[in-house]
Amino acid sequence: MNILIIGGAGVVGQKLARALAAQGTLRGKPITKLTLADLNAAPTIEAPFPVEAATCNITDTASVAQVITEETDVIYLLAAVVSAHAEQDFDFGYKVNMFGTLNVLERCRALGTKPVLVFTSSIAVFGGEVPQPYTDHSALNPQISYGAQKAIGELLVNDYARKGFIDGRGFRLPTISVRPGVANRAASSFMSSIFREPLQGQEAICPVDPDFPHFYLSPRQCALNLVKGAEIAAEDLGKNPTMTMPGRVWTIRQMIDAMTAVAGPEPAKLIRWQEQPEIADILAGWRLDIRPEKALRLGLKADDSFEDNIRYFLEEDIAAPAGA
Amino acid sequence: MNILIIGGAGVVGQKLARALAAQGTLRGKPITKLTLADLNAAPTIEAPFPVEAATCNITDTASVAQVITEETDVIYLLAAVVSAHAEQDFDFGYKVNMFGTLNVLERCRALGTKPVLVFTSSIAVFGGEVPQPYTDHSALNPQISYGAQKAIGELLVNDYARKGFIDGRGFRLPTISVRPGVANRAASSFMSSIFREPLQGQEAICPVDPDFPHFYLSPRQCALNLVKGAEIAAEDLGKNPTMTMPGRVWTIRQMIDAMTAVAGPEPAKLIRWQEQPEIADILAGWRLDIRPEKALRLGLKADDSFEDNIRYFLEEDIAAPAGA
Repeated sequence: MNILIIGGAGVVGQKLARALAAQGTLRGKPITKLTLADLNAAPTIEAPFPVEAATCNITDTASVAQVITEETDVIYLLAAVVSAHAEQDFDFGYKVNMFGTLNVLERCRALGTKPVLVFTSSIAVFGGEVPQPYTDHSALNPQISYGAQKAIGELLVNDYARKGFIDGRGFRLPTISVRPGVANRAASSFMSSIFREPLQGQEAICPVDPDFPHFYLSPRQCALNLVKGAEIAAEDLGKNPTMTMPGRVWTIRQMIDAMTAVAGPEPAKLIRWQEQPEIADILAGWRLDIRPEKALRLGLKADDSFEDNIRYFLEEDIAAPAGA
Repeated sequence: MNILIIGGAGVVGQKLARALAAQGTLRGKPITKLTLADLNAAPTIEAPFPVEAATCNITDTASVAQVITEETDVIYLLAAVVSAHAEQDFDFGYKVNMFGTLNVLERCRALGTKPVLVFTSSIAVFGGEVPQPYTDHSALNPQISYGAQKAIGELLVNDYARKGFIDGRGFRLPTISVRPGVANRAASSFMSSIFREPLQGQEAICPVDPDFPHFYLSPRQCALNLVKGAEIAAEDLGKNPTMTMPGRVWTIRQMIDAMTAVAGPEPAKLIRWQEQPEIADILAGWRLDIRPEKALRLGLKADDSFEDNIRYFLEEDIAAPAGA
């Protein structure tokens, strides 16, 4: 299997690369090559197969054609302009998230090799007056441009798959927490930083109340689900190959209690509660209750507890917990 | 009110123009000008205000800029490549239905005048395993490219409206029956021709069984709903300005019985029952039960009976019923 990850330098791309390295196979066949493509060369990883870094800008068709070739068996399309960024820069959001996705799909169609394409959508496709809980049959009603662009991406992937141009499947990612690294321009960025920073002895701001409910998944389980997502047989996907990836609904309070249970009472004291007017409108629509039944039925999984998410972060992403 | 109908030469465009002429006002103000834009110059109509024909190809940004100007108050976007045609010509369907819609939206955004834009979507956005009846909160899950393109159009219109670039609203049109004129390349074309042709003494083919249920609206009521649709206050549209236009579910048998009740037993004898393999897949997904509750609440209406649809056709579209 010759695998390409577009967005291979990101948090999810890197975790996915490691999960593929650990498994060594995909869809029952040995992995022969993994290419990590991103705007800038991605860090490569240790693996029992060759791993290459490549630069790719999905807004440029020639750049897309360089990384997707006749040899490419499986493509993960993770690259995106994230929520608050796409909301601030309307044109750039559409350019990357809609036209960039279309460039990838058109390249696959032109090749005629029908590669497996795993598209990552987002729970930002949900919103407005649609009654919760959101199920696999709920209307997508995005209230930010990022969500609109991802919903359009889903429709394109589904239509290109139906026409036989790709073996497509899409997964709406829950908010990934705890994300390692630094804050990004997603409105959900605080949902990681209020754990990541305090666990390393630094302050962080929480702009919502402790009872704010939202839908989460650890980076580790997200990567495992993306591996599994590529392995689902096309005929098991039914007439809508895009679905919500499993996650769990937790309140901020439940997550902080989990951090305290794992790492003691000190980190929670470093959280400052303070509204952030520039993302308040987005967050008001993100009090979420989601039931990802189809993906669970197909074998994808949620985390067992948020304690696990905290432990994964401590084990994988920092050498030792803050204050230890 | 300076009004533009893009797709003004079509059946719905012409009926809408006449409905606007009859009302003389829109959104409480006198209509000062009506432009009927289409690929070829549309027939103009009698009206108490100036009516102009214009050529417009929505795939050409310069052509779009010529018809949408700073003076345009209300735009009806009816132009589209229809279902079976878009399914046969993948590129052309996306070019017109997705990129053409985007050209119209971008022109409005560039002008900065926030015109009212009435977008016509289609019930072809529904499908697959989503449980029926389809409500305002059902997932869109198109099983043809035309439906995917219309669903993308909805997302674009909603996002441009949310951002304040347009005063946008969209309506998923039921299958319009009885359409006057000649057969077109919509897979639903037979749903008019099995009445239109027999009522004029000609044979027509019905490719589905008599119990086939589907969702219909007369051209007359569709035009009245489009007038009303432009008049709904933006604040009453909520967080999803696109909704299904009212229609009613009838079986083929019920509709033929209605034709017989109005026009006697002869027309029904001219219907030949014969499958059409090239559209069988599309039609298999169109056994529909739809509940257009939001639009009904906002004052749009369905027909009272299919007898009315037959009578409208006889009164408005042919001089006298066949055989009379």
